[in-house]
Amino acid sequence: FRLKRKGHKTCIMSKGTVVLAYSGGLDTSCILVWLKEQGYNVIAYLANIGQDEDFEAARKKAESLGAKKVFIEDLRSQFVEDFIWPAVQANAVYEDRYPLGTAVARPCIAHRQVEIARREGAQFVSHGATGKGNDQIRFELTCYALYPEVKIIAPWRIPEFYNRFRGRTDLMEYAQKHGIPVPVTPRAPWSMDANLMHISYESGILENPKSHAPADLYLMTKNPEDSPNEPDVLEIEFKNGVPVRVTNVKESTSKDTPLDIFSYLNEIGGKHGVGRIDIVENRFIGMKSRGIYETPGGTVLLKAHLDIETFTMDKEVRRIKQGLGIRFSELVYNGFWDSPECDFVRHCIAKSQENVEGKVQLSVFKGQVYILGRESSKSLYNEELVSMDVQGDYDPCDASGFIRINAVRLREHHRLQGFSGTKK
Amino acid sequence: FRLKRKGHKTCIMSKGTVVLAYSGGLDTSCILVWLKEQGYNVIAYLANIGQDEDFEAARKKAESLGAKKVFIEDLRSQFVEDFIWPAVQANAVYEDRYPLGTAVARPCIAHRQVEIARREGAQFVSHGATGKGNDQIRFELTCYALYPEVKIIAPWRIPEFYNRFRGRTDLMEYAQKHGIPVPVTPRAPWSMDANLMHISYESGILENPKSHAPADLYLMTKNPEDSPNEPDVLEIEFKNGVPVRVTNVKESTSKDTPLDIFSYLNEIGGKHGVGRIDIVENRFIGMKSRGIYETPGGTVLLKAHLDIETFTMDKEVRRIKQGLGIRFSELVYNGFWDSPECDFVRHCIAKSQENVEGKVQLSVFKGQVYILGRESSKSLYNEELVSMDVQGDYDPCDASGFIRINAVRLREHHRLQGFSGTKK
Amino acid sequence: FRLKRKGHKTCIMSKGTVVLAYSGGLDTSCILVWLKEQGYNVIAYLANIGQDEDFEAARKKAESLGAKKVFIEDLRSQFVEDFIWPAVQANAVYEDRYPLGTAVARPCIAHRQVEIARREGAQFVSHGATGKGNDQIRFELTCYALYPEVKIIAPWRIPEFYNRFRGRTDLMEYAQKHGIPVPVTPRAPWSMDANLMHISYESGILENPKSHAPADLYLMTKNPEDSPNEPDVLEIEFKNGVPVRVTNVKESTSKDTPLDIFSYLNEIGGKHGVGRIDIVENRFIGMKSRGIYETPGGTVLLKAHLDIETFTMDKEVRRIKQGLGIRFSELVYNGFWDSPECDFVRHCIAKSQENVEGKVQLSVFKGQVYILGRESSKSLYNEELVSMDVQGDYDPCDASGFIRINAVRLREHHRLQGFSGTKK
Amino acid sequence: FRLKRKGHKTCIMSKGTVVLAYSGGLDTSCILVWLKEQGYNVIAYLANIGQDEDFEAARKKAESLGAKKVFIEDLRSQFVEDFIWPAVQANAVYEDRYPLGTAVARPCIAHRQVEIARREGAQFVSHGATGKGNDQIRFELTCYALYPEVKIIAPWRIPEFYNRFRGRTDLMEYAQKHGIPVPVTPRAPWSMDANLMHISYESGILENPKSHAPADLYLMTKNPEDSPNEPDVLEIEFKNGVPVRVTNVKESTSKDTPLDIFSYLNEIGGKHGVGRIDIVENRFIGMKSRGIYETPGGTVLLKAHLDIETFTMDKEVRRIKQGLGIRFSELVYNGFWDSPECDFVRHCIAKSQENVEGKVQLSVFKGQVYILGRESSKSLYNEELVSMDVQGDYDPCDASGFIRINAVRLREHHRLQGFSGTKK
Repeated sequence: FRLKRKGHKTCIMSKGTVVLAYSGGLDTSCILVWLKEQGYNVIAYLANIGQDEDFEAARKKAESLGAKKVFIEDLRSQFVEDFIWPAVQANAVYEDRYPLGTAVARPCIAHRQVEIARREGAQFVSHGATGKGNDQIRFELTCYALYPEVKIIAPWRIPEFYNRFRGRTDLMEYAQKHGIPVPVTPRAPWSMDANLMHISYESGILENPKSHAPADLYLMTKNPEDSPNEPDVLEIEFKNGVPVRVTNVKESTSKDTPLDIFSYLNEIGGKHGVGRIDIVENRFIGMKSRGIYETPGGTVLLKAHLDIETFTMDKEVRRIKQGLGIRFSELVYNGFWDSPECDFVRHCIAKSQENVEGKVQLSVFKGQVYILGRESSKSLYNEELVSMDVQGDYDPCDASGFIRINAVRLREHHRLQGFSGTKK
Repeated sequence: FRLKRKGHKTCIMSKGTVVLAYSGGLDTSCILVWLKEQGYNVIAYLANIGQDEDFEAARKKAESLGAKKVFIEDLRSQFVEDFIWPAVQANAVYEDRYPLGTAVARPCIAHRQVEIARREGAQFVSHGATGKGNDQIRFELTCYALYPEVKIIAPWRIPEFYNRFRGRTDLMEYAQKHGIPVPVTPRAPWSMDANLMHISYESGILENPKSHAPADLYLMTKNPEDSPNEPDVLEIEFKNGVPVRVTNVKESTSKDTPLDIFSYLNEIGGKHGVGRIDIVENRFIGMKSRGIYETPGGTVLLKAHLDIETFTMDKEVRRIKQGLGIRFSELVYNGFWDSPECDFVRHCIAKSQENVEGKVQLSVFKGQVYILGRESSKSLYNEELVSMDVQGDYDPCDASGFIRINAVRLREHHRLQGFSGTKK
Repeated sequence: FRLKRKGHKTCIMSKGTVVLAYSGGLDTSCILVWLKEQGYNVIAYLANIGQDEDFEAARKKAESLGAKKVFIEDLRSQFVEDFIWPAVQANAVYEDRYPLGTAVARPCIAHRQVEIARREGAQFVSHGATGKGNDQIRFELTCYALYPEVKIIAPWRIPEFYNRFRGRTDLMEYAQKHGIPVPVTPRAPWSMDANLMHISYESGILENPKSHAPADLYLMTKNPEDSPNEPDVLEIEFKNGVPVRVTNVKESTSKDTPLDIFSYLNEIGGKHGVGRIDIVENRFIGMKSRGIYETPGGTVLLKAHLDIETFTMDKEVRRIKQGLGIRFSELVYNGFWDSPECDFVRHCIAKSQENVEGKVQLSVFKGQVYILGRESSKSLYNEELVSMDVQGDYDPCDASGFIRINAVRLREHHRLQGFSGTKK
Repeated sequence: FRLKRKGHKTCIMSKGTVVLAYSGGLDTSCILVWLKEQGYNVIAYLANIGQDEDFEAARKKAESLGAKKVFIEDLRSQFVEDFIWPAVQANAVYEDRYPLGTAVARPCIAHRQVEIARREGAQFVSHGATGKGNDQIRFELTCYALYPEVKIIAPWRIPEFYNRFRGRTDLMEYAQKHGIPVPVTPRAPWSMDANLMHISYESGILENPKSHAPADLYLMTKNPEDSPNEPDVLEIEFKNGVPVRVTNVKESTSKDTPLDIFSYLNEIGGKHGVGRIDIVENRFIGMKSRGIYETPGGTVLLKAHLDIETFTMDKEVRRIKQGLGIRFSELVYNGFWDSPECDFVRHCIAKSQENVEGKVQLSVFKGQVYILGRESSKSLYNEELVSMDVQGDYDPCDASGFIRINAVRLREHHRLQGFSGTKK
């Protein structure tokens, strides 16, 4: 499609309706006005996925900027149940470290955006994601997958837009000119993205991979140096590989809905400074980027789930599932949540979780999660079988045969090396 | 081979010479005497791989028990360079959690044991590993691989032995009868295995997976509750994926030989309570067992290596290497260090590390390791390319094409679902 | 358990009941009598899985040898539906070449053996598989998995048995002494195993991997030099990844039950000499062995299924499924059909086959299967999209962006190589 | 970069020099002239990779069309040694069927194109690949990887070009107008690509996946219905996983340079109709496309290499190498020959081939390759060890222990299922 500059602000015929993923901030406010300027009817859509935001103020702002409709959608429960829970089942971690807090949120937001676009008859969707990042891909792949005919307007990839707005100053100027309220507090020298699962920090002064993150950067977790000197002890109960209850053992309080459980784990994890990481990761588009993340509840859950999973799942099932989990993490990171392969992998992983149930006790303290013990009626752990004090139904002589058969191949290999003299 | 009970203690003709992996403790002392009783010449071999032991006392004890020769071998440098370093390159972790401290030590011990057996013309080797564990396999696979004709005497798998020694009491009695010094300090209600890389704790009261480990169990790491309230900040320099120098940034001291580096990381990690885990794992023989491990230096290195590796290694090379690292960990856990496949994987992983060099800064505090920053002349990180403030040699329009081509398949899939009506 | 030699042939008290997998041949006939001699009640069990055998003669023979009961079980349909079909869905091939004809049959036989043992209250099962092969493992792992308390008598691994029967002469002598009918036709200088899926040939003169197989060895397939000079053209229709109908296009005949379909494919494949392979493979116990196989129907199906699968399955789902299929093949080869991991993999693979439906046309001629064309209402193939003559809903400019983004990483890598000068 | 329409044919200032991958055919002849028209100096580059072409006529044609320079480069030996041989070592096959004949040729062509461009100071490269295919990606990724600053002109993705040339008629008209010789023979209703390794056929009437390929399509292989009624028997000798000699056993002739060996295998394979496939494959850009390929020599080599590899390589090394080979095939198919990951995988695979040496005997007949036997001084095959008639250094009792230990996990699983009652 082609965007054409209009010579006058009002155009008789609209180009159509666009559903804009609106954040309430400066960028998407400017985009809202700019889209109107380009001749679109704009529907502002703001997903509540747990970020700290004055949603009513955002609604009013969008309306005042000329949005034809504004949808503020509370997706928090859906985000936890349909997006975070599968990630928990998968032990989803990208490149061994990043728990995917942003990646998991993007398809959640885009699902509703597509729903609104279809319902409202909008042919266009738009977002404020930049042209070098992963989020543009995550948003758009989900949109294309669920709404193949959709047309996507990504202003930060449109020369008319990005050449006009080359920096924050340009946006500020435009805002002032168009009556867009400008932020009064000075902006942090980095960008951030927040949701129920995590806050990410990147860009600006963080782009130098050598420089340390400032101590005051973190908003979701306490600095472990200042966190309580006493641990909290939690018991998390799992069923089908997802938590169904969390209990604070000392306080005897518990939570048992997905959103409450996750929020409580965020609270406790955050209080003790759990889940901070500073990494360089590989974006889908092939760049390395530096990101700082805090994922308090997600980190607690990852550790607890790993524990109950290994306790209850067959060893060899787990090996296969581990590979699927890595694949899942890559798919989600790259924006393929709504792909046939991610559906397939999610299905397989969910299948593997059928017996993953039981309770894990853990303590949370000074940035760490310590597993203390676990129990399950579905465990394959057999205390008698493994005991060093009881022989049980186990004949140690069998191990001799097991070892000798495993050695057949190794001994043959040695024989060959002797012949060929190539042993190095 | 057949063990025959002798009617009298001394036999005119020896059955041959056995090199016994001797620990100095009650079990292998009894085995030493029992092997003599069975008619073998016994060579006691005690590897120093960093465990806390009075090696000279052990030598005297072995001699007094009738060992024909005693070899006390300091393998610490070799252990670090030839066994721990490849594990560091691999980011070796078994089942997502266990850093393989025992598994990596076993082939190191067995290598020298085989060398001694060959040199001394011994046809037999022996060890005190139990019949349900992994260590018997690790010892023996290495022995068979390097010395295919060797005969292995594993007393804990020989009915004559294990039926005679059904518990500690039997060993104590036998010891008293045969002049074997018995330990005076009461024994911990669990078993442990220590080396430079870690201490493991299992069995006894730990066999109940639900019961918490006692606070006084750990010998190598401080309880984070009692550890310093101030972090240490280290800079670790890597070359070829292994550390070549560690510097304490505040104190400006540094270490630069493998053994010194690793020992220093143990010291700092231990001081801050780093590397404690409590897990249930899957043994090679298919049992689940509960183990508690503390791996202070290894944990610091794992985090630092992960960071410098992702910083310097190509994304797709890393994905392939990640799979090889998981395979390596399984092989090492299962005792296949000396197998053609482990040789192959080690070679490939080492190849992948050629550009893994640079410096990582990190802080160690209250059980945690925090990466602070990193730098490298070999990094593929390109600050200009990734910057959100600079366009650089990057055209954001390319991303539109990239996304749309990635969506081709997803849109086709949606089309099919429409036809078949099987979209769930 | 302990086998004790009896001083007299009849013993007052039986040691218990054993269900023997009986083939009707010399080996298992001797085993039947020997087991009786050892004091067991023997139930002879002979599975009809499509081998060429006079089952009624075998029944009489077993009865005459003293079997307390004889079960001749027609498992052919079950073999096709529950064992061959999952292998077809998986494109199961071991080490890139062997279609697993024996491996897939073993658990089928053992399932019924366990059923009979449980129903008849037998504590023991027995078989005539040798001590160096894979089949012993396949039989026994299934027995242990489905009947964990079972005791297994594997005579070829019992010294009293194998030391007594060191060669065929010993078996012949024993047979003559005990009234066991001995084969009158001279025995082929190799061993073979036949079922509906294939015949395997190994041992004897085939043990020299260099010597060619004799031309008259093959029983299931025509020599392609003598096969018809005109192809047969078949159309195979699939649903859920398994064939539901096969039609001979020229003759307009068709089959539509699993057993009929598979038998017909064997007939046509056999007539045209399809599915002969001569390979060296790696046994589970680590030995390399030479095997010659003919798998006519299975080979036709493998080719046809590969075609319809790639035609209908999403590319990325297929990549993941390919890995699962390789894993499945290894598991089946090694005898783990009845393991939690094989259950899991089978479930995942079956899930992937939901849209694998449509028709494949192929010709069978002189040992080869040629795919001619395919059609499906579930295909993801889009003739318009892919056409070189129609642009369709595809903008070629998108490919430029796609390529350039894929090149970002490669160009960065080149930059690094320039700096480090390590480009080789 | 920006293409600007010129109002007159000659431009004072050239836009720069472009190295065009020229085939001598209609399309690239038109592109040559069109590029000149656009203001470029054009260097025509024609790689001889074994296709059937009158190279001198092509040179004259290019010169007559106004190419400033013409390079005809004989890359056949390099193609075999540097591109086909690594594919042989990898057993490279895409999606279980396609031996990658085109994919392997593309980087070979592009390597020289980049060399010429650098040497001649050309900033641009160009090719005639279409905008929906894989080849554009393969060419360009190699160009970007080896010459990151290069600018690529892909006319079939430039609207000015593809909107002007909407079909063959437009090209013919343009040719006539610009003095480009037009083909006199009528064009086949499909497109094809030929090189030493294969010929591929696609598009046109082949786009209907159901319609059968015409019998006269194939140019490189005889129709098996018309091929000799007598097989040829070859012995192929391998070293480091690549062939070093091929001998026709009956004729006692042999070849021993890479190009001679491969050409001879093409001759024999072609004579017997070996290597025809008709498949639907998944392009990198996510479309399914139908392709017909004939790869005579490559198919013979694939079968022979698989045989000698399994014969000489350790089982577990092979399992890991199999995964790397699949990865290699995907990378090559997708155009990533010149990527760090493909370098890495190639290195690892080459390492695995160090002991892959020996001789394979095979017969070639009526479209099939039959392995007859093999021998190697590096084999891990041990005839005595595996023999069913000799016990050798193998204790069958060991197998009992091996099986029972492997069953530990399966029996535990059964126990759990009993408890949970979830056995289905």
